[in-house]
Amino acid sequence: MYSFKNDYSEGAHPLVLKKLEETNMLQMQGYGEDVLCLQAADLIRNIINCPDADIHFLSGGTQTNLIALSAFLRPHEAVLSAETGHIEVHEAGAIEAAGHKVVSIQSSDGKLSPELIMPMLDFHTDEHMVKPRLVYISNATEIGTHYTKGELIALHKFCGENNLLLYMDGARLGTALTAQGCDLEMRDIAEYTDAFYIGGTKNGALLGEALVICSDELKTDFRFFMKQRGGLLAKGRILGVQFLALFEDDLYFKLARQANETAELLRKSISGCGYSFTSDSKTNMLFPLFPSEVIEHLKKRFDFYVFPGREASKYETRLVTSWATQRQAVLDFASCLNEL
Amino acid sequence: MYSFKNDYSEGAHPLVLKKLEETNMLQMQGYGEDVLCLQAADLIRNIINCPDADIHFLSGGTQTNLIALSAFLRPHEAVLSAETGHIEVHEAGAIEAAGHKVVSIQSSDGKLSPELIMPMLDFHTDEHMVKPRLVYISNATEIGTHYTKGELIALHKFCGENNLLLYMDGARLGTALTAQGCDLEMRDIAEYTDAFYIGGTKNGALLGEALVICSDELKTDFRFFMKQRGGLLAKGRILGVQFLALFEDDLYFKLARQANETAELLRKSISGCGYSFTSDSKTNMLFPLFPSEVIEHLKKRFDFYVFPGREASKYETRLVTSWATQRQAVLDFASCLNEL
Amino acid sequence: MYSFKNDYSEGAHPLVLKKLEETNMLQMQGYGEDVLCLQAADLIRNIINCPDADIHFLSGGTQTNLIALSAFLRPHEAVLSAETGHIEVHEAGAIEAAGHKVVSIQSSDGKLSPELIMPMLDFHTDEHMVKPRLVYISNATEIGTHYTKGELIALHKFCGENNLLLYMDGARLGTALTAQGCDLEMRDIAEYTDAFYIGGTKNGALLGEALVICSDELKTDFRFFMKQRGGLLAKGRILGVQFLALFEDDLYFKLARQANETAELLRKSISGCGYSFTSDSKTNMLFPLFPSEVIEHLKKRFDFYVFPGREASKYETRLVTSWATQRQAVLDFASCLNEL
Amino acid sequence: MYSFKNDYSEGAHPLVLKKLEETNMLQMQGYGEDVLCLQAADLIRNIINCPDADIHFLSGGTQTNLIALSAFLRPHEAVLSAETGHIEVHEAGAIEAAGHKVVSIQSSDGKLSPELIMPMLDFHTDEHMVKPRLVYISNATEIGTHYTKGELIALHKFCGENNLLLYMDGARLGTALTAQGCDLEMRDIAEYTDAFYIGGTKNGALLGEALVICSDELKTDFRFFMKQRGGLLAKGRILGVQFLALFEDDLYFKLARQANETAELLRKSISGCGYSFTSDSKTNMLFPLFPSEVIEHLKKRFDFYVFPGREASKYETRLVTSWATQRQAVLDFASCLNEL
Repeated sequence: MYSFKNDYSEGAHPLVLKKLEETNMLQMQGYGEDVLCLQAADLIRNIINCPDADIHFLSGGTQTNLIALSAFLRPHEAVLSAETGHIEVHEAGAIEAAGHKVVSIQSSDGKLSPELIMPMLDFHTDEHMVKPRLVYISNATEIGTHYTKGELIALHKFCGENNLLLYMDGARLGTALTAQGCDLEMRDIAEYTDAFYIGGTKNGALLGEALVICSDELKTDFRFFMKQRGGLLAKGRILGVQFLALFEDDLYFKLARQANETAELLRKSISGCGYSFTSDSKTNMLFPLFPSEVIEHLKKRFDFYVFPGREASKYETRLVTSWATQRQAVLDFASCLNEL
Repeated sequence: MYSFKNDYSEGAHPLVLKKLEETNMLQMQGYGEDVLCLQAADLIRNIINCPDADIHFLSGGTQTNLIALSAFLRPHEAVLSAETGHIEVHEAGAIEAAGHKVVSIQSSDGKLSPELIMPMLDFHTDEHMVKPRLVYISNATEIGTHYTKGELIALHKFCGENNLLLYMDGARLGTALTAQGCDLEMRDIAEYTDAFYIGGTKNGALLGEALVICSDELKTDFRFFMKQRGGLLAKGRILGVQFLALFEDDLYFKLARQANETAELLRKSISGCGYSFTSDSKTNMLFPLFPSEVIEHLKKRFDFYVFPGREASKYETRLVTSWATQRQAVLDFASCLNEL
Repeated sequence: MYSFKNDYSEGAHPLVLKKLEETNMLQMQGYGEDVLCLQAADLIRNIINCPDADIHFLSGGTQTNLIALSAFLRPHEAVLSAETGHIEVHEAGAIEAAGHKVVSIQSSDGKLSPELIMPMLDFHTDEHMVKPRLVYISNATEIGTHYTKGELIALHKFCGENNLLLYMDGARLGTALTAQGCDLEMRDIAEYTDAFYIGGTKNGALLGEALVICSDELKTDFRFFMKQRGGLLAKGRILGVQFLALFEDDLYFKLARQANETAELLRKSISGCGYSFTSDSKTNMLFPLFPSEVIEHLKKRFDFYVFPGREASKYETRLVTSWATQRQAVLDFASCLNEL
Repeated sequence: MYSFKNDYSEGAHPLVLKKLEETNMLQMQGYGEDVLCLQAADLIRNIINCPDADIHFLSGGTQTNLIALSAFLRPHEAVLSAETGHIEVHEAGAIEAAGHKVVSIQSSDGKLSPELIMPMLDFHTDEHMVKPRLVYISNATEIGTHYTKGELIALHKFCGENNLLLYMDGARLGTALTAQGCDLEMRDIAEYTDAFYIGGTKNGALLGEALVICSDELKTDFRFFMKQRGGLLAKGRILGVQFLALFEDDLYFKLARQANETAELLRKSISGCGYSFTSDSKTNMLFPLFPSEVIEHLKKRFDFYVFPGREASKYETRLVTSWATQRQAVLDFASCLNEL
């Protein structure tokens, strides 16, 4: 049984593990003040061309989102998110548990735009309602789509004009930036957002996300929030060393490209067999619609998510690839699909 | 410069790393529902002789304390802690950020007893005050002392009689249980507390603590809290696999014993030179009092904490050993001390 | 300028003020443990035929909702509310500030039903999402509609079958229960909800809501939550005495009926002139659609809310009556409308 | 049975009630935006000589403290309070429920000073601990003592030098400012604190406290917090009208002086009989030490608090007077005491 369930089915990329081992017995400072974290942060600052950015390493996406958003907002300030946003749906109410309302916005492609946000600003008029303050976007989104440079610049401009912060959840930033035809670079994100994170867990690391704080006003006392929310690891070095491995020699982008390539192979096989998709994803998550007998057949050899059906006879499914996906498995999947 | 600053200066024990590598490329379920976590939990349940215990793997001590305590308590319920307790002093207000008051109790040896707790129960009389509900103890304590079986049983009995939960922070549980003359075993802790955690970070793991929930009433929906507080790792397997390594062949206790042995060596050298300690620690943290010229001399070759002085001429210091401490470094420290 | 903006434009009903004065100089216990509160609670228990109910007096609706819901729920549990629900829209994120997600449900008439709730239960499947636990309904709703006895029983049954608590916000309970043709009585509410509150502020009191806790499991330690959230008034007597006045001689229902009657008069005048309403309200809040020139004309003599227009030429407005509404003002409004 | 238990045993002063009645049927804006609140705020701004102060009316002391402090602080910032502070002892953990640690400071007279605060600043060194940010003082204190102008200026200077906010809980501000020999005026408080509140409940009002925000940085969006925490009353006018009554013709200070005078009478009777006090209070709360037989005798005719005894034979008691205290009752108490 081969799994296309997600992009965290395996451990770390071997080069990441190797660096972890090589540095394992060196004595270092605790709590992310070690030399590995410092080097990794410098490397990232260089890549994003933002020498003043603050960079903090955290364990996972939900933790990063909740620590960042709760540090950035005052109690009455709310987050605006697409209805498919990870914080709105799949973080067990983490943002609300930190005291903030997530205002949900309908969006057909998982992305937000000034046009979608504006009506929500108009709706919130006074102190009887929450105060919209931060726009949360995911890139790639939870349904596999990604932002163009133009779209990000438009959001940045709109947020600036409306006293809104712009925050990007980059759990799958690698596959977004390496998607076919994507004109967005990591340094653009540093320029056009107030903060964002670079996801490690789903792109080669054992665990770890690198939060980048671009706006000076959001930097103060951030390590207090990390500590208070349980996000400051005693051996913070293990996060630093992994990002060091990922951003030396461009490994991060190579791995993401690899994930996109196997996804593309999968996409072609599926559409070649005449099946359609519920989302126009160019990244490593595909959402094909399959009839139940196809699903039954595939499920004998492959694991993947099947969502409750909208139509009687077809079901939305989710197939995910990663740097660890075996090309042969994709070919086997295609063969299996062709058997029908 | 050799560091005795803490027990998390190095990475993981080689056997732990080895198991991590061996399982690295196997596909597994996410979020701690993988086979490694299941096996590790079974192993621990067997060791503590408690087949019904719920076991959850988390990243660090502060995270474990805050998720556990906020899951166990209703909003008006308070925690009772020694004034030296980690949650009271060194978690940046994590418990309060989760809404609960930590009621501080003075204690000369970092431990709590029915005699110390009772006056606090008497003091809290009605709904104008918080309601004491959970007793938090650390073992080993933050000043290196540890509990005997008799002391734990007395607390257990007292808590049962007073509608209090008993929770043990086991960040340094290994060195507590392997301290010279300690009559407490891990299965006793499962019997006499409502929940406790087995610290991995400071005893051989890269990161990771195993929370053991013994009382049925505290088990419900616990994974929701882990998710909501950012404690559910996508690759939860990396926590499971480390505890698997630590509890196969008793590695956990071997490492703790090793830390205690180098501490004992250090202790003898120091007292042999005529210096005294501020805490009667039998575990891997020592708190010698040194004159400033001694500190100056030692600091040339060794790193360790120096606390603000109570007397003009002497300073409290903290020296910590671990499984990774080199015996030669301890001997060097002794020589260095003898030079004066 | 006469105001139809809301039902809290005036102070208290004279009989309420009278009782406040009569008891003013008597010495009493503080914090709601006085004889007036005790008598008022007994009176209400008698009216709802529920001798075991716990009754607590609080200052306002938002306070009551937030104290009740945060006391009833564990941190990961969510509230289900119609998208028009007061807690969802007009409490500045009070429920989220207490840590709980409000899951919004679209509803055409401001009411919830098993059919509307069921899909939300299906959607929330595991610990990556919040856990729906409490159904929040308003009666009368924020758009003036009200529940029938059959509808409430259906919700009660559904909630029982799905481990959900049922809570009714009764800020405008009086006008709901006295609406034309309403077959629901206050004792039904005590029978078919887990908790509800009887709104005083909008029906004759200076301030004050009476929270009724019907389910035993929700009663424990409730006064702690009142104190902790700032809801325990030193002179709690002033809440008790007002409810005493309101529920002696049925004053509460008389006042509500009076509000509904002036609303009915207003409704007939408006529909008589050919204008329609956006909500089929039978209670004291009306939502007529007026062209802008009509609004301009009326605004010269009357104050009321005008909402942003859905159509170019018509605007939704809100007119509210209360026990204090002068019949003559309603007649004047009708004349004014007829002038066009 | 006459009660000296507290200063909120009766309702409002007759002049306050009168003004409430006179304005009762006037239509006004809701939520504290009415003309009475505006007038009362202007009156207070004039008295404190601070035309830019923001003034908000709230229901009670705990509510005021929790809304103010949670609005003023970021999540990792802590409050410093005397160990006897109302927020530390008698608010059921309200500040912690809002997420902030209250750091308790031992003080022999219920007051804080730079000398008492400094060691706490030295103790909190990094992000593993909370960050002290606001100094909470009560005036009069919970044990009846009060601040001099010099003491307040010293605190103000110290706070300014150490990046600390200074907040005064004025639940009993009236009796503090009118205490014999007190050189502090209300305008001084506006000058030397960042925010404070003027207590109405315990000095002539039915309910109500006036929060005065002096520092511009603390003013932004404050009404959001009031709403979110349930502190914005629909009929906010009833708070405004009471403060209008209290600050016209100096009624507030007259009532406080009256309370202090009956307290002085009581104090002299008690010390004249040879009993001592546990606190050197010059305000309306007295803490005499009585032998148990005296208490038994007094309790036949008077109600007051008796605290658990420190010595076998003597008990600390609390006697409180207010504007409503009858002079005859004080004389009766003295006679009763003399009978022994």
